[in-house]
Amino acid sequence: MPPLSDSPSNPVALQRVPIDLGERSYAIDIGAGLLDDPRSWDGLPAAAAALIVTNTVVAPLYEARLRAALANRYKTVHTVTLPDGEDRKDWSTLNLIFDALLANGCDRKTVLFALGGGVVGDMAGFAAACYMRGVPFVQVPTTLLAQVDSSVGGKTAINHPLGKNMVGAFYQPQRVVCDLDVLNTLPLRELSAGLAEVIKYGPIADAAFLDWIETNIDALLARDPAALAHAVRRSCEIKAWVVGQDEREGGLRAILNFGHTFGHAIEAGMGYGQWLHGEAVGCGMVMALQLSQRLGLVDAAYVRRVTTLIERAGLPVTGPALGADRYLELMRVDKKAEGGEIRFVVIARPGEAAVRGAPDALVRDVLAACCR
Amino acid sequence: MPPLSDSPSNPVALQRVPIDLGERSYAIDIGAGLLDDPRSWDGLPAAAAALIVTNTVVAPLYEARLRAALANRYKTVHTVTLPDGEDRKDWSTLNLIFDALLANGCDRKTVLFALGGGVVGDMAGFAAACYMRGVPFVQVPTTLLAQVDSSVGGKTAINHPLGKNMVGAFYQPQRVVCDLDVLNTLPLRELSAGLAEVIKYGPIADAAFLDWIETNIDALLARDPAALAHAVRRSCEIKAWVVGQDEREGGLRAILNFGHTFGHAIEAGMGYGQWLHGEAVGCGMVMALQLSQRLGLVDAAYVRRVTTLIERAGLPVTGPALGADRYLELMRVDKKAEGGEIRFVVIARPGEAAVRGAPDALVRDVLAACCR
Repeated sequence: MPPLSDSPSNPVALQRVPIDLGERSYAIDIGAGLLDDPRSWDGLPAAAAALIVTNTVVAPLYEARLRAALANRYKTVHTVTLPDGEDRKDWSTLNLIFDALLANGCDRKTVLFALGGGVVGDMAGFAAACYMRGVPFVQVPTTLLAQVDSSVGGKTAINHPLGKNMVGAFYQPQRVVCDLDVLNTLPLRELSAGLAEVIKYGPIADAAFLDWIETNIDALLARDPAALAHAVRRSCEIKAWVVGQDEREGGLRAILNFGHTFGHAIEAGMGYGQWLHGEAVGCGMVMALQLSQRLGLVDAAYVRRVTTLIERAGLPVTGPALGADRYLELMRVDKKAEGGEIRFVVIARPGEAAVRGAPDALVRDVLAACCR
Repeated sequence: MPPLSDSPSNPVALQRVPIDLGERSYAIDIGAGLLDDPRSWDGLPAAAAALIVTNTVVAPLYEARLRAALANRYKTVHTVTLPDGEDRKDWSTLNLIFDALLANGCDRKTVLFALGGGVVGDMAGFAAACYMRGVPFVQVPTTLLAQVDSSVGGKTAINHPLGKNMVGAFYQPQRVVCDLDVLNTLPLRELSAGLAEVIKYGPIADAAFLDWIETNIDALLARDPAALAHAVRRSCEIKAWVVGQDEREGGLRAILNFGHTFGHAIEAGMGYGQWLHGEAVGCGMVMALQLSQRLGLVDAAYVRRVTTLIERAGLPVTGPALGADRYLELMRVDKKAEGGEIRFVVIARPGEAAVRGAPDALVRDVLAACCR
């Protein structure tokens, strides 16, 4: 677990979390009012053109403001507005980005700006990884989930009908700019979904952070600026620390997928976009905790405690009744699976995760207990 | 230019050309009978499953033999057979590989084997780069062009209607296995296309190699095993030397695109698959030489000399009459273009290339001289 950085006297003043990946190192900037501040974009690679990648929901709110802030840096700023939703995170939507780049004659110095949530960030990042075999990109996450998780660490992907995030790349952004002000326009359901990924960091890496979230969950739901600032910063610190040690998920990084094996099965099984990713992760964490308990790793009180917090965050703690066979089938195509064996991220003890297999019978018990 | 390695006493005995890219280093193995020899596959990453990616033309010739040779190493060997042709190097064909991987429950240790020419290699390599964000792959090139150029160096891509190889990745294989015997089944037109990329190495990097090709062009066209072995080995040595210095084409590597700026315009302008890639490169080299002469870099005798060799190799030296405007439009989306300026690989002097812009008027002169 990384050391907790000093709390700033002004909680929403600019904080910079470095992510150390050698020549691919970059900074996560966190603060209020960053979107409109031209200084947020200083030092990015020089280019004649930029392309803002956003979606139909975010564009009316923030596209013009980002465009104005970038106008000093780039002679031309293009925009491509994608349809919204996890169910559109596919090749045909990705191709809209390539169409825009080529139709506008964008060369391989063009900088892409991902302005949106996790879906926009995943697609803009993957497009940047592939366009002319790689152009620079910047993450400008507009959801809590993207700020605390998906915009950091360089995982990009699109979905395949047979599995979530199955086609993608490890490709690091030049910078992540988290403007805390944009969280004010986030629907409550999306705020809760983001809190799932915030809560995640407690059980896997930082028991003290779990205590802090419990104390501050109401402030977070009320969008208290200082509380949100701390949650984003601490989440990014932990994620940067994990990714800095294991960029391409050879080992440690897999712990960030706590709740995701069950969660991806819920998302795919229900049809992408029915459950928000964060909702599926919230419920998936309850299942993974139940599994950890059945494996003798944590006690019932700890499972109850974290489950209560997930529920207080406004997240579902009961899974859809897809049937255990369907859950198992969906989980066998998880990227952590090896030779047909599903690998689960479990809680070895409060604040520490591990990756391991589990007997199907135990998984069926968990599903029976958690689904209806 | 890398030093010429010693000639082996048996010209088709296994030769190994190392490609030095730090932790992404690998070997190009060149020799007769490698496909059927299980030793060719020793030392590759362990996995439960392999997937052979091939096409409808190559599968009947070599798929069963590769499958048999791999049977000792992998519990399961799957095969996906793609449609043939540059005009099918697109997303929908690429997706057949992802479909096969997911339908067969392939995990992220699965090794892909690209058994075919440049199109198969480009697509299998790009699929390997993207599937679960990266699985290992091996190039088993079955055309001369793929053996001397496209299978080496980690460039993978698919085409976009607006430009060739516009969507792809730098992704290195684990190994390249060039079985010289497979060149015996190659149609003559494909052999000529491969010779374009062999000839290329002379003007850009190795004047002595150009002399050797001139002396041996008839032997190469007659598929003399010793001549083909030398051509493949020397080409791979030069390519390995260039790529080892500039993996991601920050500078030097661009010289390998000699003839390709004009050539890609021919391929896209005629419709992918009408001209073979090597044919377009052959003609494109004539154009690039004419441009070099007009820029005062080489004399007419040198241009005539290389043009004659290209023609003797069975390649077109006259371009299609697309119109200069169309050529210029197509070349402006070339990946080397910057801020709308086309960058050409020219011959600075025999055996040495450079990258530079050129006035449109000069390019129009070249096109007027070379097209009908």
